[in-house]
Amino acid sequence: MDIKEEALRKHREWQGKIEITSRAPITSREELALAYTPGVAQPCLEIQKDPALSYQLTRRGNLVAVITDGTAVLGLGDIGPEAAMPVMEGKCALFKEFGGVDAFPICINSKDTEEIIRTIQCIAPGFGGINLEDISAPRCFEIERRLRESLSIPVFHDDQHGTAIVVGAALINSLKLAGKRPEDITLVINGAGAAGIAICKLLLQLGVGDIILCDREGILARGGHFLNDAHREMAEVTNRFHRTGLLADAMKGADVFVGVSRPGLVTGEMVRSMGEKPIVFAMANPTPEIMPEEARAAGAFIVGTGRSDFPNQINNVLAFPGIFRGALSVRAKAITEEMKLAAARGIAAIARDGLSTEYILPDPFDRRVAESVARAVARSAGKSAEQ
Amino acid sequence: MDIKEEALRKHREWQGKIEITSRAPITSREELALAYTPGVAQPCLEIQKDPALSYQLTRRGNLVAVITDGTAVLGLGDIGPEAAMPVMEGKCALFKEFGGVDAFPICINSKDTEEIIRTIQCIAPGFGGINLEDISAPRCFEIERRLRESLSIPVFHDDQHGTAIVVGAALINSLKLAGKRPEDITLVINGAGAAGIAICKLLLQLGVGDIILCDREGILARGGHFLNDAHREMAEVTNRFHRTGLLADAMKGADVFVGVSRPGLVTGEMVRSMGEKPIVFAMANPTPEIMPEEARAAGAFIVGTGRSDFPNQINNVLAFPGIFRGALSVRAKAITEEMKLAAARGIAAIARDGLSTEYILPDPFDRRVAESVARAVARSAGKSAEQ
Repeated sequence: MDIKEEALRKHREWQGKIEITSRAPITSREELALAYTPGVAQPCLEIQKDPALSYQLTRRGNLVAVITDGTAVLGLGDIGPEAAMPVMEGKCALFKEFGGVDAFPICINSKDTEEIIRTIQCIAPGFGGINLEDISAPRCFEIERRLRESLSIPVFHDDQHGTAIVVGAALINSLKLAGKRPEDITLVINGAGAAGIAICKLLLQLGVGDIILCDREGILARGGHFLNDAHREMAEVTNRFHRTGLLADAMKGADVFVGVSRPGLVTGEMVRSMGEKPIVFAMANPTPEIMPEEARAAGAFIVGTGRSDFPNQINNVLAFPGIFRGALSVRAKAITEEMKLAAARGIAAIARDGLSTEYILPDPFDRRVAESVARAVARSAGKSAEQ
Repeated sequence: MDIKEEALRKHREWQGKIEITSRAPITSREELALAYTPGVAQPCLEIQKDPALSYQLTRRGNLVAVITDGTAVLGLGDIGPEAAMPVMEGKCALFKEFGGVDAFPICINSKDTEEIIRTIQCIAPGFGGINLEDISAPRCFEIERRLRESLSIPVFHDDQHGTAIVVGAALINSLKLAGKRPEDITLVINGAGAAGIAICKLLLQLGVGDIILCDREGILARGGHFLNDAHREMAEVTNRFHRTGLLADAMKGADVFVGVSRPGLVTGEMVRSMGEKPIVFAMANPTPEIMPEEARAAGAFIVGTGRSDFPNQINNVLAFPGIFRGALSVRAKAITEEMKLAAARGIAAIARDGLSTEYILPDPFDRRVAESVARAVARSAGKSAEQ
């Protein structure tokens, strides 16, 4: 089966991967009078008195907007809002299938940061949460920050934080297998875009001792030349021993490699130069920074990729359905750093039984994952989950 | 049963009247690879090459946004975006139940005309049509006009045009029963807001000979004082014989009364002053301008109201599901005047069998209505419907 042809054929057949259905029966005048006029006036008036009742009397309490501007879709780049829709619909389908969360795709026809922010603020009253998706850096940082400051519902850029959380979960279990403690390790991240920086921040929170962040020019170090403020900020909190040089220099003696960069950048020699029991998360899509076979031949203790056809798939679907389900269940106003760490631990916990170098993360189809993450996130939000 | 209490109870039970479901199965890695990465890249690339394919490869071809700013909700007025949601969700449920159209509610947190327009333009790429709802006059005119000019998908303010279309259908059948021709009649509209003006425009298109439009100050006539430009414009094309005075003066000798105003404004005496076989559409909600019993006692030949507990309910649900279904089926870029007239005739046609003074419009639950309207609208759009 050619997957490209088959995917296209399926999309033609589906005519959209989401559908909107009615939860209220409307088969008689009596039912119409309850779901619509005149009965509907009553819930309207109740919400007018107390807008928080919108979580009980409308779908808001279970509803997330999946929002993109179509500028950084998959590995395809800036393909525009119409072309981004199949990905957003797919994401919404995953939200429902894996987390029981209703999610609706919004593709914004603007690349202007202010206009995107204002549009999302304007449509926010109907939603319980906002999942930002596939918005290019550095606009995604500003957009997320401003929305977090101005909205009282969770705003979560999945390409950053979802990825970081799943990498965090993979790291927790990998270190357990390798018998290492986070504070003792040196970890190299290659790729200092939105995902790389978010991973770096979360892993620092997880207590990783030293992180060396690399971009195309090599190691980020204090006093260097920086592409942007985010890089400057990261240089302040990473690279404890002021190393300089290229990726190959960074990897010498390192315990963990995390790649969110490009195919084939890592050689067997670079893996051989790493410390004991090297851990390699090569997440470039669709082709990893180094193929698992080659990494293992070079002595890698654990190899993870973004792909489902190798063991240890590092896949965001492990995180976002449960995170929003948990946040919505307690009506959290934001997804905090603590909630992200709790999510990472919640994912890791599910793979604890049967943990091995080829099973560091649960299967995406393991139904316990979203529940475990939701519980951990809800608990971390400091409130008990309401079902 | 107290309908207020029962409606509130039901809304608590439903926790939202719409739900988002997945149309693509995602139960295995293989299915995940088709609906999401890596397979989803293919439909994205196809749409990037030809954005029109978004109608086949995403839900766009069957998807309408129901959009309000919460400023003119039911008879409740400006209750805000959160409180408007139960009505919008109800409308979306009706779209699905009656027309098979997927509709999603968007409540905009702004009353600024420019901001509302820009927000809708920004989110338009995901939708096949825009149903504007419960936006107060005169902003609704400007918003609809500007969106129609700038978007290439149908934009339809249901409070205006949906109401006008159903009144048009009711008039066609009522005149048939009364044995009168549109061009011979005098018709009074009381209420010169968004709905009254839209009704006036559509009935002029239907060929009504003379329309007298009244607002709170009385009859609109050329050279009078006008509240706004829309009134001035209407005065130019109505009131052929330059009548002046109050509603009671307008109704003397008139053939038809159409009320979109306030409860109890019309007396039996005013009905008695009308011409032969007077037709009274008293649509103020929840209490009509005159109760049917009183109107009939005063000699009314036909009485219609907005209520389901009297015969001849003049209800928008007869129009909007079929209109959008028809427009979407041929990917119409707009809902033209011709399509609105076709919709009115399509509704009227369904009640042709068994037509009587107590059955001038089909039952809202008559499943043939949306089909008849959709066919008429699609044909009028000049293309054959694709199913």
